[in-house]
Amino acid sequence: MTVIMDGKSCADKIIEKIKSEVVQYDKKPTLAVILIGNNHASSIYVANKQKKADYIGFNSILINLPYDVSENNLLEQIYKLNDNPDVNAILVQLPLPKTINQQKILEAIDPIKDVDCFTSYNFGWLALGYNPYVVPCTPKGIIRLTDEYKIDLEGKNIIVIGRSNIVGKPLSLLLEQRNATVTVAHSKTKNLTALSSSQDIVISAVGIPDFITTEYIKEGAVVIDVGINRTDKGITGDVKFDEVKDKASFITPVPKGIGPMTIAMLMENTLELFKIQHSFIN
Amino acid sequence: MTVIMDGKSCADKIIEKIKSEVVQYDKKPTLAVILIGNNHASSIYVANKQKKADYIGFNSILINLPYDVSENNLLEQIYKLNDNPDVNAILVQLPLPKTINQQKILEAIDPIKDVDCFTSYNFGWLALGYNPYVVPCTPKGIIRLTDEYKIDLEGKNIIVIGRSNIVGKPLSLLLEQRNATVTVAHSKTKNLTALSSSQDIVISAVGIPDFITTEYIKEGAVVIDVGINRTDKGITGDVKFDEVKDKASFITPVPKGIGPMTIAMLMENTLELFKIQHSFIN
Repeated sequence: MTVIMDGKSCADKIIEKIKSEVVQYDKKPTLAVILIGNNHASSIYVANKQKKADYIGFNSILINLPYDVSENNLLEQIYKLNDNPDVNAILVQLPLPKTINQQKILEAIDPIKDVDCFTSYNFGWLALGYNPYVVPCTPKGIIRLTDEYKIDLEGKNIIVIGRSNIVGKPLSLLLEQRNATVTVAHSKTKNLTALSSSQDIVISAVGIPDFITTEYIKEGAVVIDVGINRTDKGITGDVKFDEVKDKASFITPVPKGIGPMTIAMLMENTLELFKIQHSFIN
Repeated sequence: MTVIMDGKSCADKIIEKIKSEVVQYDKKPTLAVILIGNNHASSIYVANKQKKADYIGFNSILINLPYDVSENNLLEQIYKLNDNPDVNAILVQLPLPKTINQQKILEAIDPIKDVDCFTSYNFGWLALGYNPYVVPCTPKGIIRLTDEYKIDLEGKNIIVIGRSNIVGKPLSLLLEQRNATVTVAHSKTKNLTALSSSQDIVISAVGIPDFITTEYIKEGAVVIDVGINRTDKGITGDVKFDEVKDKASFITPVPKGIGPMTIAMLMENTLELFKIQHSFIN
């Protein structure tokens, strides 16, 4: 019997826990989001994040800059947020316009306010196996959800398909810290079906609807779908869910899988940064 | 016919190239090495590095501190080297005594003098897929040697056995940048022989003599031996060379394999940092 991993209800529990913690503090944790232009998908993501922040009792600040904003103006905005002691967490919604040097912008965020672990400072600590201020939201959400379902990661063979700096790469580093044996696959990987179908856990962050079919999956494998693809039929993941679910032992749906976990981890990271900045930590 | 990859002669060529470049400069690049205590193996490594630096025409500085040196005194020494404009590259010979917080010490090195890419600053850039000042010596030496033998890494399935911050982890990141499909294995990996014997390239950085036998190797695979193990029979690698060599297409010996390449890359990195610091770079 396949277990459908309910990211939505796991995320809701985390959100409620944060909400009940936040009321105890005199100040409200503050999350600032920078959004460039009016890309439809990005605007929806940002609106969802803000709605959740408001619900929890965080302050949320939206800085919406025009699509043709200059790199210098964008940097100015980040410096202002860095210097503002009332701002605890800064998120730059990606992707940025191609005219802007993305890494230069992300690097400008003060590491102690870097809520998605985008700076080389935090990413370096993560990669070296030490603790950055916070770990990236989506990988953290994936691991938290497997923990919730008591899926032991130690010694498991796990393939991560996709090697982005936001999901695939940090996820592989975090899974390695959990003593999994991790293979990172990508567009240049040969014989992906053979490779993938020998794994205990398959995690897809490819961004192609119906990419993962039953051929990619070993009988009884755990299947985690990180894809969020907007299609004519609405939002779908990377996994051909209806087929694959019968072969998997555990599987995440899209929507209501990793998506809500990512937002919950963004909220948790905001709270963690708030506590670090106020030295509430033991 | 198996090709024995001659790391010694490849390293010698690199050393000669650096030597002929260095005579053109008014100043000598300077490598400072900090050695704690008098561990026999570490002393030999350091002496070899210094000998090579002297041969090339670098200045080499050895700072040998007693085994019971305090963390603060060690930090003082690093700060002095950071502040000394005549020092271009700083190497802290590992391992450090257990009383000393290794990452705290490595983190104190000025990133622009961090010749082995040990700081989180440089390691973060490496992990994010951007250019740190220099990349770690041993992984760099491994990739350089495969390049020398025109072994194409793109799309190859490669297993890296061992996940240290000095070899396994940065190596896996660099191989990924070359579009290889990389699996990182370690002591908690299950079914390592099955996993390893399906790979196009096997790289062992385990530190156990004769660990890699023919069962770990696919017919015609490339075998890279990063082990340097001191045994009664002298220095040996991780690979049971005499057996495995008949099954491999390419194999590195120990000694005269990756060892000399590491030292050559240390020299190259010293020169690169010297040039960056003197803005000789285009």
